[in-house]
Amino acid sequence: MAGSTFGNTFKITTWGESHGKATGVVIDGCPAGLHLNEDDLQLYLNRRKPGQSEYTTPRQEDDAVTILSGVFDGKTTGAPLSLIIYNQSARSADYFHISNVYRPGHADYTFDCKYGFRDYRGGGRSSGRETIGRVAAGAVALKILKECKINVQAYTKSIGAVSIDYRRFNSDEILRNSLYMPDTIAYKEASLLLKSKIKAQDSIGGVIECTIDGMPAGIGEPVFDKLDANLAKAMLSIGAVKGFEIGEGFNASMLSGSNNNDSFILDNSHIVKATNHSGGVLGGISDGSTIVFRTAIKPTPSIAKTQRTVNKDLEEVDISIKGRHDPVIVPRAVVVVESMAALTIIDLLFDNMSSRLDNIKKFYSTF
Amino acid sequence: MAGSTFGNTFKITTWGESHGKATGVVIDGCPAGLHLNEDDLQLYLNRRKPGQSEYTTPRQEDDAVTILSGVFDGKTTGAPLSLIIYNQSARSADYFHISNVYRPGHADYTFDCKYGFRDYRGGGRSSGRETIGRVAAGAVALKILKECKINVQAYTKSIGAVSIDYRRFNSDEILRNSLYMPDTIAYKEASLLLKSKIKAQDSIGGVIECTIDGMPAGIGEPVFDKLDANLAKAMLSIGAVKGFEIGEGFNASMLSGSNNNDSFILDNSHIVKATNHSGGVLGGISDGSTIVFRTAIKPTPSIAKTQRTVNKDLEEVDISIKGRHDPVIVPRAVVVVESMAALTIIDLLFDNMSSRLDNIKKFYSTF
Amino acid sequence: MAGSTFGNTFKITTWGESHGKATGVVIDGCPAGLHLNEDDLQLYLNRRKPGQSEYTTPRQEDDAVTILSGVFDGKTTGAPLSLIIYNQSARSADYFHISNVYRPGHADYTFDCKYGFRDYRGGGRSSGRETIGRVAAGAVALKILKECKINVQAYTKSIGAVSIDYRRFNSDEILRNSLYMPDTIAYKEASLLLKSKIKAQDSIGGVIECTIDGMPAGIGEPVFDKLDANLAKAMLSIGAVKGFEIGEGFNASMLSGSNNNDSFILDNSHIVKATNHSGGVLGGISDGSTIVFRTAIKPTPSIAKTQRTVNKDLEEVDISIKGRHDPVIVPRAVVVVESMAALTIIDLLFDNMSSRLDNIKKFYSTF
Amino acid sequence: MAGSTFGNTFKITTWGESHGKATGVVIDGCPAGLHLNEDDLQLYLNRRKPGQSEYTTPRQEDDAVTILSGVFDGKTTGAPLSLIIYNQSARSADYFHISNVYRPGHADYTFDCKYGFRDYRGGGRSSGRETIGRVAAGAVALKILKECKINVQAYTKSIGAVSIDYRRFNSDEILRNSLYMPDTIAYKEASLLLKSKIKAQDSIGGVIECTIDGMPAGIGEPVFDKLDANLAKAMLSIGAVKGFEIGEGFNASMLSGSNNNDSFILDNSHIVKATNHSGGVLGGISDGSTIVFRTAIKPTPSIAKTQRTVNKDLEEVDISIKGRHDPVIVPRAVVVVESMAALTIIDLLFDNMSSRLDNIKKFYSTF
Repeated sequence: MAGSTFGNTFKITTWGESHGKATGVVIDGCPAGLHLNEDDLQLYLNRRKPGQSEYTTPRQEDDAVTILSGVFDGKTTGAPLSLIIYNQSARSADYFHISNVYRPGHADYTFDCKYGFRDYRGGGRSSGRETIGRVAAGAVALKILKECKINVQAYTKSIGAVSIDYRRFNSDEILRNSLYMPDTIAYKEASLLLKSKIKAQDSIGGVIECTIDGMPAGIGEPVFDKLDANLAKAMLSIGAVKGFEIGEGFNASMLSGSNNNDSFILDNSHIVKATNHSGGVLGGISDGSTIVFRTAIKPTPSIAKTQRTVNKDLEEVDISIKGRHDPVIVPRAVVVVESMAALTIIDLLFDNMSSRLDNIKKFYSTF
Repeated sequence: MAGSTFGNTFKITTWGESHGKATGVVIDGCPAGLHLNEDDLQLYLNRRKPGQSEYTTPRQEDDAVTILSGVFDGKTTGAPLSLIIYNQSARSADYFHISNVYRPGHADYTFDCKYGFRDYRGGGRSSGRETIGRVAAGAVALKILKECKINVQAYTKSIGAVSIDYRRFNSDEILRNSLYMPDTIAYKEASLLLKSKIKAQDSIGGVIECTIDGMPAGIGEPVFDKLDANLAKAMLSIGAVKGFEIGEGFNASMLSGSNNNDSFILDNSHIVKATNHSGGVLGGISDGSTIVFRTAIKPTPSIAKTQRTVNKDLEEVDISIKGRHDPVIVPRAVVVVESMAALTIIDLLFDNMSSRLDNIKKFYSTF
Repeated sequence: MAGSTFGNTFKITTWGESHGKATGVVIDGCPAGLHLNEDDLQLYLNRRKPGQSEYTTPRQEDDAVTILSGVFDGKTTGAPLSLIIYNQSARSADYFHISNVYRPGHADYTFDCKYGFRDYRGGGRSSGRETIGRVAAGAVALKILKECKINVQAYTKSIGAVSIDYRRFNSDEILRNSLYMPDTIAYKEASLLLKSKIKAQDSIGGVIECTIDGMPAGIGEPVFDKLDANLAKAMLSIGAVKGFEIGEGFNASMLSGSNNNDSFILDNSHIVKATNHSGGVLGGISDGSTIVFRTAIKPTPSIAKTQRTVNKDLEEVDISIKGRHDPVIVPRAVVVVESMAALTIIDLLFDNMSSRLDNIKKFYSTF
Repeated sequence: MAGSTFGNTFKITTWGESHGKATGVVIDGCPAGLHLNEDDLQLYLNRRKPGQSEYTTPRQEDDAVTILSGVFDGKTTGAPLSLIIYNQSARSADYFHISNVYRPGHADYTFDCKYGFRDYRGGGRSSGRETIGRVAAGAVALKILKECKINVQAYTKSIGAVSIDYRRFNSDEILRNSLYMPDTIAYKEASLLLKSKIKAQDSIGGVIECTIDGMPAGIGEPVFDKLDANLAKAMLSIGAVKGFEIGEGFNASMLSGSNNNDSFILDNSHIVKATNHSGGVLGGISDGSTIVFRTAIKPTPSIAKTQRTVNKDLEEVDISIKGRHDPVIVPRAVVVVESMAALTIIDLLFDNMSSRLDNIKKFYSTF
């Protein structure tokens, strides 16, 4: 269980290091009959690729994806989809000077402890580039979800202390600004904050929020594979994520039951909830409301500011991480959050299909 | 994947409903040679069983555990451990009046959506009694971890707005007070708060913190099975948990890189970290520092206060949940958090054993 | 992965040793809505329990099953089914004399090598009693398959050199004779053979054949989880099984393509096969014909005849295994083969439900 | 569970169709520190690539492998290995004429039943080219096993009725003749048989035998993941395999216990077996003897001889499969058997490392 595989029925396996030849993903369990081409995937990959704004690293990468298998005559065949993205800007020499040093906030030291040595070029397997495969696979999952009328939408809720104001929430704005914020005023404030961080050779964290609309009630398994448990794992599996909460989240710890419970009411003879403190999940199973969750993203650990650290020769040294690094991870992680959410949901949707005997009988009587 | 199984190598499968004949767990992958008897397990089960204080339901349950298999001559044999706890206070008639009503904040509605009907007695499978199997299995994991010099300790950090003060932190207090708080002054304040909630026929949430000491660096898988990702899933799989954070957690979203990064330093020629903002994990792999994480627990959804809801006949009705229910879930969940943490860690410890070729060769040369 | 779990979606975990307190199984992933009671299961357990004929051990066991969880109001709820069978005739003292000796053909030595020590009472976990949980779980699977019009039938094909004659094949005979042979003449010959083996203090092997009718075409996964690959694993996981073959099996190694290929033909505008050399599977996927496979069962290793062996003190010794043991394993294994086949098939049926996008969309549009 | 993944700890995922752009495999869980380059893999791939003799298809494929990830400075890093082999001779137009016809003995019909349509070019995912990924991954496993002094060796035991004679067994011959037979006289007879089959526009089956030397006793899990059960699945997952047997296999069904049991004896104070009827496995766990198993391979289904079949328009038609096809699958499958055996064994070796508490403690005390 070296853990490069995610999902049970819609199962993805990512591979690739920051400065290897390529990075990619294999998706096994994708249903046959989905119209799919490379443009479907590229759209999402472009959202995370570097060089998109003044706040992301100018490393030149096309991140152009090729579908190597699993599609025939424009449709998925049921066979595994192999998606590959070749690396271009892989100047490994750039990293030789840090090959011996443990960067604070990075996985350099822990990789050495685990494996005895590591690929030190650009973080190797623990680089943000590992998420390329997730986004490519997520694009497939998102397309299937759309066919099932389920829509996943992530956005930047806050950068440092600058948070969106829900009274100004405009989902159309999300893809229009380089920080993926649904509030242009907050976006402008956050831009200023980032400029000051760049100047200070420092970085900042933030929070990403994600909503899932159109979920049928009844999805998720009641014990260990709760919908929110699987989402939590999916989110914390993203490199810089330090926290996850759903619905009221940590705020629920301050609430009374009478405030936190959502009343069930009738809406045109359908059962709905009057409020959504639960965040769309009750007992680990979707309750038909919008799923709402948040993830906390730590500040970029690579900063130019001088830091103290040690090297493999057990010497204490100073380190200043050169080159331009993103002063904030949040914007490029938005599409990763969306992808991992989609991958989590689709797997539970598929697994749910055998939850009732009458559904199984109906399925096979017409098979 | 109905999801009653947790873990890859040290794998547990729980079963049982609130008012069925019994509840239990099967542990597969427990190594041979561990001294184990029922008292080892009972100790932990007693910490979560009802009736332990004025803040827990007086439902009479011994929660006495029997080891049905996997132990011979006082030691584990490598065969599955089957642990069973018979239910005693299973008056299902008590629940007939709610069989038709969807309790707010409960899984009644979502179970009906998923399965077409449900065992309405005491919450059935989504009852807190489902955690009994986790605690019994956790006790085994905790015992193995102790043999490896790893210690897991959970405690109540806050109930509502009443939080412990770290300057008064005393770990000896944790098992001495019924709220499992390491600060007696906070404990007393929280007690008053709970009394007021009982009086108001209401409930309150809280936060549980957990530390893991003695972890070797290098444990956890670098991508999807990150140590913190697996912990997050483990925690959110506990019924009332609405959030998870590690190290600085959500606070990291407000920090600069220069504040959030931990410098590596030397301590007697050993590499250690000067601070522990990371919470003991870097890149999903343990970094040798104490692992520190928190979970947010929602208020008990069962309250006597009248609430609006609907029933299966699509009528809007009032509901007041009779009987005494815990005004707070937190204290009884402390041992569940500890158990799930231990189960997560042990699985990753075992999986890590094949991470290096030289270790494998050494292992089999002496096998 | 200590391997006491079988299946992906309909997942069973067995536990229990020969002379422990009880033995049992947990089924996770059983769909809700199946009418189920203990009699449904007992019917199958009675077919494998000892003392049913002069050819089985007279060990007194009722093998009475109790459903501990997962059923409410006579129907499965979707929660795990926990099934328990208490051991009665567990005189462990009987086995003390072999605690130090490695019985030929048994797992005594290999258990010691793996775990450092073993539960020597009656074979412990490697006893035939381990299959009780499989049969109980298989009974549930078989009932679901029947609801889907799929019928699994195993029978004894041969005992030693005595084989059934297909011209005399009568499926009604199978459950009528104690050897589960569909040919009364072969049954009588085999009975004489067994009497001679008992007299000679020896034992004999045999072959079990199994057919699965009513399988829809299209079930099974095309690469590693081929229907026949999963069946092969299921069969070889039964203690005494030494071989598996499907359709022509080993005989196919002697055939020409023109003899071994099955022509497709039309039958009332339906595609069927003119012959069934494939045994109902092409490319790992069911082809709509009857599935036919065979398993080779070794002779009972416990024999009264004196054998040479060694003990833990590294002494060469003679051993004569006292007590009456079955002179043949085959008859009691018939229901085990049937159970494992059902468990294999049901899992693939469930997993297949998400193989096509149009099915998924149809499913969720009516959910 | 679309089933393109094999293994639990050393986990491989294959992808690619016969006439897609490429085919490949991702290996997750490969330990760090193994010296590995592309030549290590090419050696094995060359053994299965077409055009190696007069008995294999002359399709021109280099089958040149590239390592895309997981190796740095000549050694594995612990990150996933992604191995890719580009297809060259992918003239899909050649296959258009069969796009509408169901070839007897092929998976054309079953793929259509399962997925609604299929990639008809050269068998798509069910082509023999799917095994390329297995062989590439197997080469890695075989290299690790060699480091642990374990040697896997497969060879052709028989082609049609022509079988090797064990008195002439010479393992040096195996890689010297194009049929991988350890007996030159049998090789010559088999060559004549194949020539007659080619002339008759027909094909023939055969049997592959495989031995594993150097296995420590104690490997394999005692219930569902028995060493032989996992081997059986591995073998039946290879397209043309119709049967599996270990040790005496089907012959054990004819034997008495006194003939089939292996006596334990002492050899220089080590416990060994006097005979090896068991084939190296007792109770699903390796017993220290050589593991010996056989697989039955069906005749090539693609034959030039005219066959009856039906097409998608539900018309009965004649089919003669043009182009030169291998008259026998066996020789090219030998390396596939070897690879799958190695993949099975390595996974169980890794999983076994946590079977004893004392081993775990020793491991982590020196970690």
